[in-house]
Amino acid sequence: MLYDHLAQDLYTEICHIPIIDPHSHINPHQPTARGLEDILGYHYYTELAHSVGMEKEAVNLDIDPADRVRETLYYMSQFDNTAQYQWFLEIARVFLDYQREQLSLADSTWLFERAQRVMNRPGWEDEVLRRSNIETVFLTNDFDDPLQGFDTERYVPCLRTDDLVFHLDDPKVRQRLAQATSVEVGDAAGLRLAVTALFEHFTRHGARACAISLPPRFRPAPVSDNDLARALHAPAAGKGRKERRAAAALARTRAHGVFWMLAEHCHEFKLPFDLMIGVNRKVYPGGVFQGQDLFDHRVSLIQYARLFNAFPQVSFCVSVLASTLNQELVSYSWIFPNVYTSGHWWYSNIPAYIEQDARARLQAVPRTKQIGYYSDMYKLEFGLPKYNMYRRILAQVLAEDFVRPRIYTELQAVSLARALLRDNVRRIFDV
Amino acid sequence: MLYDHLAQDLYTEICHIPIIDPHSHINPHQPTARGLEDILGYHYYTELAHSVGMEKEAVNLDIDPADRVRETLYYMSQFDNTAQYQWFLEIARVFLDYQREQLSLADSTWLFERAQRVMNRPGWEDEVLRRSNIETVFLTNDFDDPLQGFDTERYVPCLRTDDLVFHLDDPKVRQRLAQATSVEVGDAAGLRLAVTALFEHFTRHGARACAISLPPRFRPAPVSDNDLARALHAPAAGKGRKERRAAAALARTRAHGVFWMLAEHCHEFKLPFDLMIGVNRKVYPGGVFQGQDLFDHRVSLIQYARLFNAFPQVSFCVSVLASTLNQELVSYSWIFPNVYTSGHWWYSNIPAYIEQDARARLQAVPRTKQIGYYSDMYKLEFGLPKYNMYRRILAQVLAEDFVRPRIYTELQAVSLARALLRDNVRRIFDV
Amino acid sequence: MLYDHLAQDLYTEICHIPIIDPHSHINPHQPTARGLEDILGYHYYTELAHSVGMEKEAVNLDIDPADRVRETLYYMSQFDNTAQYQWFLEIARVFLDYQREQLSLADSTWLFERAQRVMNRPGWEDEVLRRSNIETVFLTNDFDDPLQGFDTERYVPCLRTDDLVFHLDDPKVRQRLAQATSVEVGDAAGLRLAVTALFEHFTRHGARACAISLPPRFRPAPVSDNDLARALHAPAAGKGRKERRAAAALARTRAHGVFWMLAEHCHEFKLPFDLMIGVNRKVYPGGVFQGQDLFDHRVSLIQYARLFNAFPQVSFCVSVLASTLNQELVSYSWIFPNVYTSGHWWYSNIPAYIEQDARARLQAVPRTKQIGYYSDMYKLEFGLPKYNMYRRILAQVLAEDFVRPRIYTELQAVSLARALLRDNVRRIFDV
Repeated sequence: MLYDHLAQDLYTEICHIPIIDPHSHINPHQPTARGLEDILGYHYYTELAHSVGMEKEAVNLDIDPADRVRETLYYMSQFDNTAQYQWFLEIARVFLDYQREQLSLADSTWLFERAQRVMNRPGWEDEVLRRSNIETVFLTNDFDDPLQGFDTERYVPCLRTDDLVFHLDDPKVRQRLAQATSVEVGDAAGLRLAVTALFEHFTRHGARACAISLPPRFRPAPVSDNDLARALHAPAAGKGRKERRAAAALARTRAHGVFWMLAEHCHEFKLPFDLMIGVNRKVYPGGVFQGQDLFDHRVSLIQYARLFNAFPQVSFCVSVLASTLNQELVSYSWIFPNVYTSGHWWYSNIPAYIEQDARARLQAVPRTKQIGYYSDMYKLEFGLPKYNMYRRILAQVLAEDFVRPRIYTELQAVSLARALLRDNVRRIFDV
Repeated sequence: MLYDHLAQDLYTEICHIPIIDPHSHINPHQPTARGLEDILGYHYYTELAHSVGMEKEAVNLDIDPADRVRETLYYMSQFDNTAQYQWFLEIARVFLDYQREQLSLADSTWLFERAQRVMNRPGWEDEVLRRSNIETVFLTNDFDDPLQGFDTERYVPCLRTDDLVFHLDDPKVRQRLAQATSVEVGDAAGLRLAVTALFEHFTRHGARACAISLPPRFRPAPVSDNDLARALHAPAAGKGRKERRAAAALARTRAHGVFWMLAEHCHEFKLPFDLMIGVNRKVYPGGVFQGQDLFDHRVSLIQYARLFNAFPQVSFCVSVLASTLNQELVSYSWIFPNVYTSGHWWYSNIPAYIEQDARARLQAVPRTKQIGYYSDMYKLEFGLPKYNMYRRILAQVLAEDFVRPRIYTELQAVSLARALLRDNVRRIFDV
Repeated sequence: MLYDHLAQDLYTEICHIPIIDPHSHINPHQPTARGLEDILGYHYYTELAHSVGMEKEAVNLDIDPADRVRETLYYMSQFDNTAQYQWFLEIARVFLDYQREQLSLADSTWLFERAQRVMNRPGWEDEVLRRSNIETVFLTNDFDDPLQGFDTERYVPCLRTDDLVFHLDDPKVRQRLAQATSVEVGDAAGLRLAVTALFEHFTRHGARACAISLPPRFRPAPVSDNDLARALHAPAAGKGRKERRAAAALARTRAHGVFWMLAEHCHEFKLPFDLMIGVNRKVYPGGVFQGQDLFDHRVSLIQYARLFNAFPQVSFCVSVLASTLNQELVSYSWIFPNVYTSGHWWYSNIPAYIEQDARARLQAVPRTKQIGYYSDMYKLEFGLPKYNMYRRILAQVLAEDFVRPRIYTELQAVSLARALLRDNVRRIFDV
């Protein structure tokens, strides 16, 4: 809760801005939670519970939902200091009318049953969106998603390309690609045909962005068609050290080649490219589902300079996982016309880092080049607490850095917030 | 001094929590200063005085203590803006009844004589601990410390392993190891016997942790017994470039092998492993004693992922020297059940960095996985000003981030402080 | 504007301290702007306008100044949130008596004509300096600058050495060096003669510093005369990969050799050496003039340890481009007697970073070892808004971290500000 009156006033105004959420993992066929187990099944809770002692098997999906909820709640008191806990508390209060100050295991049954009832009543989806003041939500679709059976005005498709760039050696991925595009990829030209088919399919269904998450060491570069063809034919890695090295080099070539081809298609199809930079996958393989990835802060946007220069017409919406990379993001967005700052991602999505990072962006990046926030949510119920967290921080920063020093009037400050939360998203993604 | 009333109230309550200090360099046979020369002999003062012009020879131990004190005080006005100066001022005020606003050279004689008198009176050690509200202090013992002649309940032994990991090629270290363990180390099996003997000796005497400080480039990995044996027999480096490279590679193998063996013993003996990550030794060899080390912020906890995965039963209490590594520490502690955040080390132990780092930890790391602070002190008198510095910052952060936004009541905030300053240390180190 | 009364009081006092600006790009023969086109021609405006859509050709110098001004102002509303915009607004208000709240394109003609009139009236240069309370301004002179025709008491020469270190393979640079020194450089001894001639010329004309900006990967090391001679004779890079690598290695040797020789001369001529660490040049070659450079935050001062150790008598005034390097700078200045913190450079020269970086320096670096700020300006008019920005932040930090917690009285706080803004510069550069 905000205790600064000016910030509170700004917050109230900011809450009136209808949100366009430019990045989520919503399943449009089941956008809301079916019950508390879907809320507490969010990896933020299972991984924090596991971090303080919960067996990861305790939340296997074949276990009774009520038991899974009880198990996670049992461990929750050990992380009731976290921002993630606050999201849950806000969901319980706003959506479930939970009234007590502090959650405890004793609330488990009541909360579970209440959620069951509330989240399955008719019109729940609309109600959640209305109360969160979220108008439009971007999805993150697998490349072979049929994109059918949902309202693409409300749920905007977005082509996720991690599989294509990093797992094209996987026969299952190849097969999915072949089925989705009717192209059997054998060389660079074949791959180009397949990728074009994907972009046609996605844009035909209203897609507004291409997206990918990238490891810290990725350094995009173009690859010749011949090299790419060789990399596409690469055999699985052998056992020897030399063979593994060669396989790794080919995997890199393949990733570079596919990635560059995607950027070319973003140019051709006029789609912005969301780059989510810096994640190391499976650093803790013993962790819960989606609670295994971490990062290495030693990454620089200089690795992307060649890309940014090669595609001046493509809008690159850049998220960084490490807050220590924020100053580079600020500076690259200030210099490159096609680089935009985008949200506060994952491990940087906690108030201490959001505040620092947002302040620097607000002071040095043109207002039209900032995408303030995205929810990254899997269930619509999280839009409210996550956006509220950001709205509060934004209101506080606007109060302290803009309104009180008389740089902006309150009206101007709210207009800046509108640019960050709505107008820029509309313009950049042409919504 | 705190000027925020709520923070001041929280601070007062926090001061009532009896401290368990989980890392210091106290000599249990001479835990307090013998006089002002021991206070101003702390490297924080000699190095800052040297930094502004003091000859390092001016504080050689063969020089008259009163002269050393005068010399350091002479240069002190040039760093009276620093947090370190504030520690000294608080010692002078609280323990020596110094009343003036600003220290000057003219105070030298009075302070010196007063300290001489006060610090040598009977019961001084108890008085210092009582006034600091410090109950238990962890030590940092050489591996060949007999651990006798002191109260191991008050002064908890802790096995420091830097020499074993990084200096086992030094004949003196080998000899000390042979004398301490009655094992002449010739191969991996022999080393294992010796290390086991050390762990038995330490745990028999109440040791509660194994500790080591590590350079930025260290990247733990297991080593085969054969490779380790070869590295243990390595000749001193020759003159040629090739020979030096080979010697460096062997030193690395040796360090990795010994380190991994220590982790295995931490597992077997159920001792937490304190990792103090990121120091470069002797960067400024012309500096005063202990005032020569610095760091390189380009280090990542990804270097420790293999270790964290290999020893899920070992509690790793991680300190980072560079504040820019704090976000990784926060994230790794949030994901890995066996990784704990530990204190604010050395160059990060100044208010600007403590505040930032503590805020992020409080918002994203489970409350049970944080070790709030340790003194790192050489003399007990420093416990009070150092812990007070931390207690003030903690109180301020709790006021602003928890109590005012109504996330915690004041009582809950103090209970969080108790977890950080006492309960977690008790549980993690089984005190 | 400051809204904290104590900070406002401190700010008022700090404004009375006559500034010595230790780093600028002022042309002493034309120190002020000739009109608004010189103000808005500053790369901060052209690059931000370009970042939001302005064609870089729109500000070519052959285009009518009034049109260039209009073009930049047209795009300005898109970055009216930035600190850079605030500098412009303060110039318009203070120097041009602009009275409205928000700039718009409609102000273009009035502002242009007003600037034309005001900036060309007699005594303008003196008036600007007087109103900014700037007494002395350091320049950044090319090595072949005749240093004649201006008052070297007011405009202190400073030897810029980027061309010598990084472009000595350029025949034009060689020719300029030959003309400036009457030495045809053929080997190390010849180069030493030439460099000595430059230092003699510069010190004879009152130069007070040697300065250079350095890329992130630079790692100074001495080079033998033979190796340097070979590097001086290096042919231009050939086409093959191997040839290019060899050329790059020779370029590195040449840069190291020249740089080390400059440090030797700084020692001999008792000149401080300004090191501006961390810039990558031409990262965005499509950008406007001076709006193409960026950085890679992965740099460490450990790269400079050898240099700092080798020249204990040379004062190294270190600026870092990445705020994430500030903690290293703080720590290296605290340990090395010859390392000083210097200002807030370029991408770190925005309030969010200045505040963080200044706080840490004020808490951990001796007061006598900090150079608070420099303008980096090209036209004198920017001294006022830039220094005011810093003075406000400094006043706020002093209020919160020193005066309110009763560490300093207000008088002492202002005296600390005087050290940072004047006294230290005088002493370090012997002004």
